[in-house]
Amino acid sequence: MIQRLAIVGVGLIGGSLARVLRDAGHVQEIVGYGRGLANLQRAVDLGVVDRVETSLNKAVIGADMVVLATPVGSMAEILATMAPYLEDGTVVTDVGSVKGAVVTTARTALGAKLPAFVPGHPIAGTERSGVDASFASLFAGRRVVLTPLPENRQESIARVRDMWRSAGADVVEMGIEHHDEVLAATSHLPHLLAYGLVDLLSRLEDQREVFAFAAGGFRDFTRIASSDPVMWRDISLANHTAIAQMLKAYQGEIDRLISAIENGNGDALQKLFTRAKAARDAMTHNDQKKE
Amino acid sequence: MIQRLAIVGVGLIGGSLARVLRDAGHVQEIVGYGRGLANLQRAVDLGVVDRVETSLNKAVIGADMVVLATPVGSMAEILATMAPYLEDGTVVTDVGSVKGAVVTTARTALGAKLPAFVPGHPIAGTERSGVDASFASLFAGRRVVLTPLPENRQESIARVRDMWRSAGADVVEMGIEHHDEVLAATSHLPHLLAYGLVDLLSRLEDQREVFAFAAGGFRDFTRIASSDPVMWRDISLANHTAIAQMLKAYQGEIDRLISAIENGNGDALQKLFTRAKAARDAMTHNDQKKE
Repeated sequence: MIQRLAIVGVGLIGGSLARVLRDAGHVQEIVGYGRGLANLQRAVDLGVVDRVETSLNKAVIGADMVVLATPVGSMAEILATMAPYLEDGTVVTDVGSVKGAVVTTARTALGAKLPAFVPGHPIAGTERSGVDASFASLFAGRRVVLTPLPENRQESIARVRDMWRSAGADVVEMGIEHHDEVLAATSHLPHLLAYGLVDLLSRLEDQREVFAFAAGGFRDFTRIASSDPVMWRDISLANHTAIAQMLKAYQGEIDRLISAIENGNGDALQKLFTRAKAARDAMTHNDQKKE
Repeated sequence: MIQRLAIVGVGLIGGSLARVLRDAGHVQEIVGYGRGLANLQRAVDLGVVDRVETSLNKAVIGADMVVLATPVGSMAEILATMAPYLEDGTVVTDVGSVKGAVVTTARTALGAKLPAFVPGHPIAGTERSGVDASFASLFAGRRVVLTPLPENRQESIARVRDMWRSAGADVVEMGIEHHDEVLAATSHLPHLLAYGLVDLLSRLEDQREVFAFAAGGFRDFTRIASSDPVMWRDISLANHTAIAQMLKAYQGEIDRLISAIENGNGDALQKLFTRAKAARDAMTHNDQKKE
């Protein structure tokens, strides 16, 4: 049970967490903080938070749990600002899609308060942003990865784990580097590829016609290109090593496709497509088993 | 009104067309032909076709409309086999995602019967295959592109157009080369990129874990990698020039992304993501206006 939860950044993730914890009866009071005043007011109007604070120190003082749900590039400043106001017994966690850079940032920004920070990442989201996009079931059946620090107390980790379990998520622990590599492959790479495809087509001369002739497959494929550009700029920079490595590996994959196509190698293409279909079908099958 | 419709390949597209034309009262009798006997029997059981023929000549004799809904690589043989049995007044059309190669094939295979062939392509589909995946509303509000030949009679074109309009589609005409370039960009490229991504990840050592940590965005992005491998092998070979060109242009786009990421150029990334998001959001907006 959380007495006072401070949500820093009441958007899709922060708002959804507030909603589900309230529904689950896991929290007494929810305080929202953020830079966008219109969005904060909307969070109050929707009943997602009980009240808002316009200064970060007021938002965290008296909170037993602080959740950072802002783009990873903003976390250095936020952590440094809140550090002096963190009380004994306050646990801070984040929802950033990159853990290595966030932990490095936290070490510098929090100093002696570092043990309070338990890094986390819910593997859930949609392409939409802001509190209006939030909904209580966003984390149901989804994984949340925690990458605890050697400095964390077990009790702090347990409180973050309990919070996410109350939100309906399946909580797992993972090493920081491993997390960043896996996410580069399954999330960061696809987002960059989708942005890249839409950007490429939008620069074709007859773009209006091109998009008019796009069918459902294209819409599915590019949906994530509607995601928040600032959030993805920050992720791209924060996880640059693993992402650049995946982009280069993907270029190798495209090289193989081009070569098979230019050589008229139908067998190679069919094998590749069949292997990919089997892997993708297995994923759908696992989803259905879970439902 | 079609007296007897012969559907060659009663799968997702052929089956859906049969369903909707029957619902619309636009057809008297539907004859199915295909290589997969289990699928054909299923088409009869589902009432998608009235009866099946196990030889192609029997299927087309007496039909006033023949629709080829098989992978484009199989069309040369099918067209050559049916050519002697095509009667005056029979119109043949196809649903292939590539028009240049199909037309070249048809010129050779049909010879003097070429005027009967009106090339077409419904811009609709799902990642599923077979008659079980077919449904009557597949073409509702979707575009169908016709790329008529100089040899076609206006009346033949009109009959194909009427058929697709009865199926709820919006019918447009386009040049063959233009069609193949537009589709390479909006359909063929995304399918190859999705197959490539799933293939790349399936070869990572810890693939089971990688897929377990994939969220909704990845599922959307890779859904089309569950598409039929033979169909996509054929499309890749038939439209090889335009597809290879798009794959190379896409590699240029990835080069730009890698360079921005490795140089820590957040401004360039944010600009690119913002431009792509605007284009993708406009697409969603147009969809919603149409609904």
